[in-house]
Amino acid sequence: MVNRSIITLLTDYGINDEYVGIMKGVILSVNPSATIIDISHHIDPQDLVQAAYLIKSTYKYFPKGTVHVIVIDPGVGSDRAIVALEMRGHIFIVPDNGVSTLLMEEAEVDSIIRLDDPSYFLESVSQTFQGRDIFAPVAAHISRGVEINKLGKPIDQRDLVRLSIQKPFISDKGELVGTVVSIDRFGNLITNIELSSLEKFCEKSKEKELKVWIGESKITGLSKSYESVSSQSPLVIIGSRGFLEIAVNCGSARRHFMAAKGDAVRIVLPD
Amino acid sequence: MVNRSIITLLTDYGINDEYVGIMKGVILSVNPSATIIDISHHIDPQDLVQAAYLIKSTYKYFPKGTVHVIVIDPGVGSDRAIVALEMRGHIFIVPDNGVSTLLMEEAEVDSIIRLDDPSYFLESVSQTFQGRDIFAPVAAHISRGVEINKLGKPIDQRDLVRLSIQKPFISDKGELVGTVVSIDRFGNLITNIELSSLEKFCEKSKEKELKVWIGESKITGLSKSYESVSSQSPLVIIGSRGFLEIAVNCGSARRHFMAAKGDAVRIVLPD
Amino acid sequence: MVNRSIITLLTDYGINDEYVGIMKGVILSVNPSATIIDISHHIDPQDLVQAAYLIKSTYKYFPKGTVHVIVIDPGVGSDRAIVALEMRGHIFIVPDNGVSTLLMEEAEVDSIIRLDDPSYFLESVSQTFQGRDIFAPVAAHISRGVEINKLGKPIDQRDLVRLSIQKPFISDKGELVGTVVSIDRFGNLITNIELSSLEKFCEKSKEKELKVWIGESKITGLSKSYESVSSQSPLVIIGSRGFLEIAVNCGSARRHFMAAKGDAVRIVLPD
Repeated sequence: MVNRSIITLLTDYGINDEYVGIMKGVILSVNPSATIIDISHHIDPQDLVQAAYLIKSTYKYFPKGTVHVIVIDPGVGSDRAIVALEMRGHIFIVPDNGVSTLLMEEAEVDSIIRLDDPSYFLESVSQTFQGRDIFAPVAAHISRGVEINKLGKPIDQRDLVRLSIQKPFISDKGELVGTVVSIDRFGNLITNIELSSLEKFCEKSKEKELKVWIGESKITGLSKSYESVSSQSPLVIIGSRGFLEIAVNCGSARRHFMAAKGDAVRIVLPD
Repeated sequence: MVNRSIITLLTDYGINDEYVGIMKGVILSVNPSATIIDISHHIDPQDLVQAAYLIKSTYKYFPKGTVHVIVIDPGVGSDRAIVALEMRGHIFIVPDNGVSTLLMEEAEVDSIIRLDDPSYFLESVSQTFQGRDIFAPVAAHISRGVEINKLGKPIDQRDLVRLSIQKPFISDKGELVGTVVSIDRFGNLITNIELSSLEKFCEKSKEKELKVWIGESKITGLSKSYESVSSQSPLVIIGSRGFLEIAVNCGSARRHFMAAKGDAVRIVLPD
Repeated sequence: MVNRSIITLLTDYGINDEYVGIMKGVILSVNPSATIIDISHHIDPQDLVQAAYLIKSTYKYFPKGTVHVIVIDPGVGSDRAIVALEMRGHIFIVPDNGVSTLLMEEAEVDSIIRLDDPSYFLESVSQTFQGRDIFAPVAAHISRGVEINKLGKPIDQRDLVRLSIQKPFISDKGELVGTVVSIDRFGNLITNIELSSLEKFCEKSKEKELKVWIGESKITGLSKSYESVSSQSPLVIIGSRGFLEIAVNCGSARRHFMAAKGDAVRIVLPD
């Protein structure tokens, strides 16, 4: 049997309030030997796209059998469904609001269950904090070995809400155009341009001559490490998520380029 | 025997410094198999009232036997006592500065012990960091099964310091007047008006006609969920703590009303 | 055999992004029963001195056998080494960039191994996130009992990079001059003046008459606790790290003195 005692948490609850601590109390009340790992509680409130990218780049570093709980849930208390989704041996507990859009593009989904059996919830379910009342106890029951098909009825993948997440595209001028989708603590600008898109766009031999534009600024060539340019100089690199990033060695690309989430990034082939 | 291996931490230490990590090291040195859960380390420095509300709304979601460590301790190094308090099967380690005021209103306290046996402390006790030197090792010993009456002498509940925490009241005009006691990450304004007070003040059938004033603004009726009003609209709801909250659907009531902790909230009955 | 299942993490990754969560996933994939403790992820980006002080004041509160992972690594992707260092029964995994300078002054180092056996790394090692690809899996293998001399070749302590960390000194005027090296959440100004330096500088009987200058302000005498002065008054105290601190009782010395990291602190003997 797969070990399911690891539970990860990804929320927009922040850590100043008691919300995350309470979820952990509920989990431990059901399964005292669960191992609970925080992915992040600082998703920008209700930013489903940011959460979608983050879970996609995180889950695969955990052992198979891990239960991933994702509570970015502006529709809490409405009639949106909560589902358990099994894929590649991982279980995801998510609201049906599109946050699983990128996950479902990753690989075939093995099953999706609509969580509608209240015997796995807290006794009284509030309209404001279902992270505590539904997500946490259900995850804990799964971590104790309850099969997800015991938790409700299967639903079809095509019936889940999907976000329309903007993908990079080739413009009229033949440029590859992407977007800054998140900015990390170091000020690195993480785009939605995956290595595979870049490889289709440009032969490997020409990567050193690519021109990458952000706003009115241009950077030439793809670097292999931050230190390949001098301190405080900008560079373009394939980051740890496997996406193109704009960085500044020992500095902040956010400040250097006065950049923000949503900014366009254009890649131009050498002549 | 009750399982006491779960220890929760509630402090105003923040998480940028090493203080919380050191407390965990001390706990694991005494009991390597303790499960340590952070409730929050972001209580506003030395805000005893905020901490008092937070522990009251949190502890009950943990299994009986959990040891709750609360270090909001402006008097560290003075002669204020540190006590272990047992209630409803939970153990609380708190400074005797009033932070347990709301806990003691919850239910009968089973016993209170003044922690004065240094054989359960670190060898050298500082005047500045007793979270490390006293709270952490005592909690770890309790989590290993040491009975709290071994840790010092019992004291009477009436001898503990109490905060005078302002409660909602009925004004001359017949309005129910409460206060914003905390504001969460989403900008929800959490008041000190409990559901039970509201129910005494107003028949259930009239809840939809209540008028709730904050500053010069009025909201009509109690909502069942955030989504019961349109996006960016304000609403009043019973929040997850069981207290009346003012919120804005997909927005921030703090920003919407330019509100702050301590602001008055007035509830007016329908004519 | 020493129990090595505790792993601590000290990084400058912050906790908004997924980086720390991913490191924990990698650790648990290798050793599902590891206990992972966060020391801090809020080292100022790439501030090696701050990290050097912090690990020195933290490690000794953990049980022997603990594996301490320190990822403050501006040179990631360059050819700087990553080493495992054993001292006083603790194991430290650090980049060879000077962050271990103060540790090596603490006590004799038992062995230092350059981590160069990729069979203990993730299969593919990136140039941007070696916390995930090297530090985490190596720490997890050590926590499962792998001896560090299996992980690479020993190197000599004298070959490690050292920071030149400014130490307190006696000025021409006979004053003991130190520096504010960090400021905690409470606004306490933590200097680099250790209790032992102070004791050499001034007889114990005269501590009450010492004058401590910060900028144009003077504080007289060493206090035993925050409460030994009235509320909002400044004081000088030996803090929990064993270093001289400037504090304000129930207030912030940072705000009171408009102080910043790097400010000079001068100690003048009584006449």
